[in-house]
Amino acid sequence: MQASVYLIPVTLGETSIEKVLPSHNREIILKTKYFIVENIRSARRFLKKTEASIDIDSLTFFELNKHTDANQIATYLDPIKNGFDVGIISEAGCPAVADPGAAIVEIAQKKNIPVVPLVGPSSILMSLMGSGFNGQSFAFQGYLPIEQSDRIRRIKQLEQRIYNEDQTQIFIETPYRNDKLLKDLVETCSPSTKLCVAVNITCEDEFIKTLPVKEWAKRTPDFGKKPCVFLIYK
Amino acid sequence: MQASVYLIPVTLGETSIEKVLPSHNREIILKTKYFIVENIRSARRFLKKTEASIDIDSLTFFELNKHTDANQIATYLDPIKNGFDVGIISEAGCPAVADPGAAIVEIAQKKNIPVVPLVGPSSILMSLMGSGFNGQSFAFQGYLPIEQSDRIRRIKQLEQRIYNEDQTQIFIETPYRNDKLLKDLVETCSPSTKLCVAVNITCEDEFIKTLPVKEWAKRTPDFGKKPCVFLIYK
Repeated sequence: MQASVYLIPVTLGETSIEKVLPSHNREIILKTKYFIVENIRSARRFLKKTEASIDIDSLTFFELNKHTDANQIATYLDPIKNGFDVGIISEAGCPAVADPGAAIVEIAQKKNIPVVPLVGPSSILMSLMGSGFNGQSFAFQGYLPIEQSDRIRRIKQLEQRIYNEDQTQIFIETPYRNDKLLKDLVETCSPSTKLCVAVNITCEDEFIKTLPVKEWAKRTPDFGKKPCVFLIYK
Repeated sequence: MQASVYLIPVTLGETSIEKVLPSHNREIILKTKYFIVENIRSARRFLKKTEASIDIDSLTFFELNKHTDANQIATYLDPIKNGFDVGIISEAGCPAVADPGAAIVEIAQKKNIPVVPLVGPSSILMSLMGSGFNGQSFAFQGYLPIEQSDRIRRIKQLEQRIYNEDQTQIFIETPYRNDKLLKDLVETCSPSTKLCVAVNITCEDEFIKTLPVKEWAKRTPDFGKKPCVFLIYK
């Protein structure tokens, strides 16, 4: 069988492996010796969590983040030439979706190397499932602009799209700015536009709540530094 | 603990449970007695696959599809009042994403019933992971129009969006029209626009291939009646 690139999702937060990952993923991990990872320390921790007896020192890690040089990235797939599978592991959730990994997959596709995504938790997809919003048409927009006037303009643009295109709009924020984003949404969107906030998906304190913006305006929830996904729909 | 609505993903095609579903899902299924399902026969088959000894006759099924009356749908959550969890199971993959279920979740959110999405295979998310395309910004557009001129116009519009907004565009087609859609994409898109076709995700014959449209034009793959996801990006 030809060596492949596996996209290996990880748990979100302190959730157990059994809660969010199929046992098949463990089998793939245990036969893989080369890993391209967003952060070596947390990747090692995840592998130990998967199998306590794993021999970390027998594994090779390549680091992939915004500081990694493009020429270097291309060499990360060299083990494939010698018949070894390569796994991609990001910091949280599914590699290549709102996380690094796509640059490696792009190279693999160009080199005609099989790419195999594994199942795992995606806070984007799971928050959409739990929102009650349109799942036949949706868009993930990443982070909104930081600068206030740009951000307000962007929120208005996305809100228009839910009415004009019947499309759920999904976005995220750096946790320490969650409360600020909620405030901007409440002050910018129409009172009847619906907002879903999905907090700490798959974790003990998971919370997914959909309410009209006018109802959110009456509350002052404190999401602290918890990872949140924000969704708006009509 | 308050009774909840669980969104329970199922396998795609003939894949084994262990390959694509966490063992936690099995535990939730075995403690649930009420299921809202897209198709009773295939839901029963999935439950039997999860646990061969399951007593199907002790379970209650409510059918949810395009023929279901809206008033009837609201009654499907009545078991919650009596402290019983309710599970939602669609035909393939994740409920409420490109599948029924969102209408029920919407009602649950309004009634302040906790909604808990479980992890499972999503051909949309997995094809995005395997495409090498932008995972920081992407949109799922559902089905394109059937009528040729509308469809061509829509393809042009989506192609513009990948260049103007740097957003991956994802769509699906009824399997028997896959080959026709591929032909329309090849004839409509710029030769350098990249197209990824993801066939039978998670199944034995899974195939995820990204190529510029001009390369697809030289091939005449026959996807037959296999489920495909189509993605375009620059």
